[in-house]
Amino acid sequence: MNSNKWFTEQMLSTGTAFSLKIKEKLHEEQSDFQHLEIYDTETFGKLMVIDGCTMVSTRDNFFYHEMMSHPALFLHPNPKRVWIIGGGDCGTLREVLKHKNVEEAVQIDIDERVTRLAEIYFPELCESNGDSRADLKFIDGIQWLKDAAPNSVDLIIVDSTDPVGVAEGLFGEAFYRDCVACLAEDGMLIQQSESALLHLDLIKDMRSAMQTAGFSHQQTLFFPQCIYPSGWWSGTIASKAELIFRAEDCANKDFDTIYYNLDIHHAAMAQPEFFKKAFA
Amino acid sequence: MNSNKWFTEQMLSTGTAFSLKIKEKLHEEQSDFQHLEIYDTETFGKLMVIDGCTMVSTRDNFFYHEMMSHPALFLHPNPKRVWIIGGGDCGTLREVLKHKNVEEAVQIDIDERVTRLAEIYFPELCESNGDSRADLKFIDGIQWLKDAAPNSVDLIIVDSTDPVGVAEGLFGEAFYRDCVACLAEDGMLIQQSESALLHLDLIKDMRSAMQTAGFSHQQTLFFPQCIYPSGWWSGTIASKAELIFRAEDCANKDFDTIYYNLDIHHAAMAQPEFFKKAFA
Repeated sequence: MNSNKWFTEQMLSTGTAFSLKIKEKLHEEQSDFQHLEIYDTETFGKLMVIDGCTMVSTRDNFFYHEMMSHPALFLHPNPKRVWIIGGGDCGTLREVLKHKNVEEAVQIDIDERVTRLAEIYFPELCESNGDSRADLKFIDGIQWLKDAAPNSVDLIIVDSTDPVGVAEGLFGEAFYRDCVACLAEDGMLIQQSESALLHLDLIKDMRSAMQTAGFSHQQTLFFPQCIYPSGWWSGTIASKAELIFRAEDCANKDFDTIYYNLDIHHAAMAQPEFFKKAFA
Repeated sequence: MNSNKWFTEQMLSTGTAFSLKIKEKLHEEQSDFQHLEIYDTETFGKLMVIDGCTMVSTRDNFFYHEMMSHPALFLHPNPKRVWIIGGGDCGTLREVLKHKNVEEAVQIDIDERVTRLAEIYFPELCESNGDSRADLKFIDGIQWLKDAAPNSVDLIIVDSTDPVGVAEGLFGEAFYRDCVACLAEDGMLIQQSESALLHLDLIKDMRSAMQTAGFSHQQTLFFPQCIYPSGWWSGTIASKAELIFRAEDCANKDFDTIYYNLDIHHAAMAQPEFFKKAFA
């Protein structure tokens, strides 16, 4: 098959666009919250698009899902209770559940349709949805955090879309205050934080709001993510306590990964020179 | 200015495309070797395009130029004689000349027009062209290597276009044999080696040919490069001797960089899990 159709995400604010060659559009719908599309691509497997933005592809989602879960999980002394805010494609949930010490993983995505489509088009990402430790809720994550009791979670993973529309309330001091309030003393948050090349101001604002909200430590991680703008993505960790890496547990991990390992953990923590200067 | 013009590099073989929003095309010519275009972009400064492929932008060239020079230079015990094959935009040359122990840096690019255009549109990359240690030759790099005497160079940097057309002869055993023949015993080669996500087979072929040609050690480095396919690029080092990192010299470097530093050096050397398995 050699059509000449492409799916293109044009980002006018950054002056960049990324395209994947597609075989066909498999599905399109307007959910209660977002516009959802599924494509079959020539070289990246299936592609999910939300509100015009590439979200997840079969071929390269491992970067994002592994890096949003394993580094934080190995930086926590003993993460038993994990909440995923967003993450409706269930790929982060699958990675989290690879950790045997995790006793409870709650995925809170407002849009059930994302998960229902993932079950059809990305079944491999949903293979742990039936795990007895998994709990999938389709409610508002912001409200969930507001209502949460103190010391009720060890790790919060904010696996959301960009900070516009439905995800806007996930990037800001009020949200971080709610996270601080329900996290255990040694708890932490990791949030996808866009591209350090294209969105440095956003990362500055995020880290500053995290600090003000009561997270005394921040650490930004860097990793490739080909289908996202610039191809170079980041996640930012915020914690009340200092991060201590369980390096031996990481080196001896008893599960498979495609990108992440001990050396990649350290690599992701390395701060580029311009980034160090921006936060000096 | 808010035109709706884009420059797009479509890579049919990988099913991906990358675009930058442009203000205007500043220049276009067919040189004796390649089709050259210069654009003024909305957000990435100037952009040079060779044979339809994005080559260098004002905004993000620092990743590539720093990572093709500093890691290799700090992995060599005392690099005095450096040859750059290709590199006509002079950005790699500028980085190489930041190292005071370099006594001679010869840039051998077959296409003088690339350098003449860089002087006009990327003057900052050409700011060391007048350095007394710099020697710019506009001849065939493959022939130059064939004619070179034994033990005449410490580091060869292959800063070329993709392995098609004029650069094809730079990716193969015959070329690597010529490199082995003219490098000092502790000498090394670094060559841009495309994207580990999109071109793993090419990296396999390169490393295998390097090995057969007499380079007993290979090490692939990973770094972001937004305007290249997948946004995640690599360089592969080949050497006869084992690599020994001058970490203290790197930590105490007396020049500025935008991306590279001691931590980033180690980060670039980290091998992703799938990559380790591919070369196990």
